[in-house]
Amino acid sequence: MTGLRELQRRRVREAISTAAITLFLERGFDEVSVAEIAAAAGVSKPTLFKYFATKEDLVLHRITDHLGEPARVVRARAEGERPVAALRRHFLDGLARHDPVTGLNDDPEVVAYHRLVFFGAPSLLGRLHQFMAEDEEALAEALAETTDELTARLLAGQAVATQRVLARRNWQLLADGRPMAEVEAEAVRAAEQGFGMLPG
Amino acid sequence: MTGLRELQRRRVREAISTAAITLFLERGFDEVSVAEIAAAAGVSKPTLFKYFATKEDLVLHRITDHLGEPARVVRARAEGERPVAALRRHFLDGLARHDPVTGLNDDPEVVAYHRLVFFGAPSLLGRLHQFMAEDEEALAEALAETTDELTARLLAGQAVATQRVLARRNWQLLADGRPMAEVEAEAVRAAEQGFGMLPG
Repeated sequence: MTGLRELQRRRVREAISTAAITLFLERGFDEVSVAEIAAAAGVSKPTLFKYFATKEDLVLHRITDHLGEPARVVRARAEGERPVAALRRHFLDGLARHDPVTGLNDDPEVVAYHRLVFFGAPSLLGRLHQFMAEDEEALAEALAETTDELTARLLAGQAVATQRVLARRNWQLLADGRPMAEVEAEAVRAAEQGFGMLPG
Repeated sequence: MTGLRELQRRRVREAISTAAITLFLERGFDEVSVAEIAAAAGVSKPTLFKYFATKEDLVLHRITDHLGEPARVVRARAEGERPVAALRRHFLDGLARHDPVTGLNDDPEVVAYHRLVFFGAPSLLGRLHQFMAEDEEALAEALAETTDELTARLLAGQAVATQRVLARRNWQLLADGRPMAEVEAEAVRAAEQGFGMLPG
């Protein structure tokens, strides 16, 4: 059960993040100050920084909430299931429920949000890559529990790259205005191919 | 033939970069100002910025001089050679001549240089990842000349990840103090395995 205090914390966090992303989408990441965001969300600047360590985190927390997911998927896999099969299954499940992290979500706000992440500012992309590196590191550790360290690192690098290429491409097709049904069928085929290129 | 003006340009560039990296290694990336670097190299701050657009580029130009290399290797491959085979051959050639980009170079300055890149400052790592994304994009374009766009993007992502994991691991083994001969044999085996995990 989630306590009332935790619920309140989440609400404040969500309100700050929503205010920030709305302003960034309207005027651009570099053009909006943290003071303006705090004012729009009705909190003080120090309070804002208690919830988000950096301006970049105001945008990226929606993505970083998934941090460590590939590692968790591999660790939670059924007995006898291969790691790549588990990652593939998880990605296909994400496509089926149009999880924004798969890129397959045509809600205009989600599409605009990803455009902000990819093209909003170099610092955003830099921090995103840092998080992906952490994801890869965690996945390598999870894989190393059942294989040698070199294989684990190589496979983690290749698998995270595969997911990134797939998600980015799904987003691009939708951003280009292609209809969802068409992109969805294409995304499933692409995922089968991408994970099929990985060993195991 | 390289003209005298170009030769002079390269000398100034090298002098500024060497001064910068020496100071960064001594005192840390964030602790040294661009003004101090300009003074140490005997140039003005505006001159420095004509050679290097950002403080990060003072460090990373040694790596960015290799920008687009995977794409060039794929385009220059022999007829009948598969792209992955060409990339593998190029990486093994790099190992044989202890090219710093393969991570297999135990010169203490090269080892320290890579430590600076990986751990010197988040902005350095962020910019390095940006360059790797450009490398991957260029490689995808080169691959797309002989295969479909999706396969090209997936393979480019997986191949660049493989090279990065291999180079980083070689550096780590040397940074941990393992003897060069031992690491070299291990690096060749690891490269065979890594490229062997890629399709084609």
